[in-house]
Amino acid sequence: MDLREFQKQIAKAYREKDRARGLAGTFMYFMEEVGELAEALREPEKHDLEGEFADCVAWLASLADIAGIDLAAATEKKYPGTCPVCGQSPCICISKP
Amino acid sequence: MDLREFQKQIAKAYREKDRARGLAGTFMYFMEEVGELAEALREPEKHDLEGEFADCVAWLASLADIAGIDLAAATEKKYPGTCPVCGQSPCICISKP
Repeated sequence: MDLREFQKQIAKAYREKDRARGLAGTFMYFMEEVGELAEALREPEKHDLEGEFADCVAWLASLADIAGIDLAAATEKKYPGTCPVCGQSPCICISKP
Repeated sequence: MDLREFQKQIAKAYREKDRARGLAGTFMYFMEEVGELAEALREPEKHDLEGEFADCVAWLASLADIAGIDLAAATEKKYPGTCPVCGQSPCICISKP
């Protein structure tokens, strides 16, 4: 699944509503989905775990669109397949603990 | 950027650490990044907004890996380009407000 295309798809469907709602309001929706993800991770048999992960990706894409960030480019830049610093694939020197 | 490949890349680099830390501990790291994203959205000139978005995607991929969820498949399923229900592209009937 192409993340860049997905962000465009979300922007096409929701940009108008997302922008009207604004950054803070859209962040609240994102947080609501993050909370539902926590709930589903804790009791996956009672929730739609797959759907909650999907909603988090979708709201992250909405937020990135409002903020003018290309989610795919940002992710590739910070987590390149082959790191320009350590030369490893995957990189062994990035900051993710 | 292919989200499925990215999840594999993250799993290759971090699965061992992520699993040892466990689901709850990894969720806490994800939340830490979500908090940093909020901070960067509020004052983008003082933070690495792109990097914070990237970290959220990366930790979401780690969480999905631990939970046995294919993030790309989950997202495509819930947010298909052309909706099998309404027949529209983008779908106009899915639940995202």
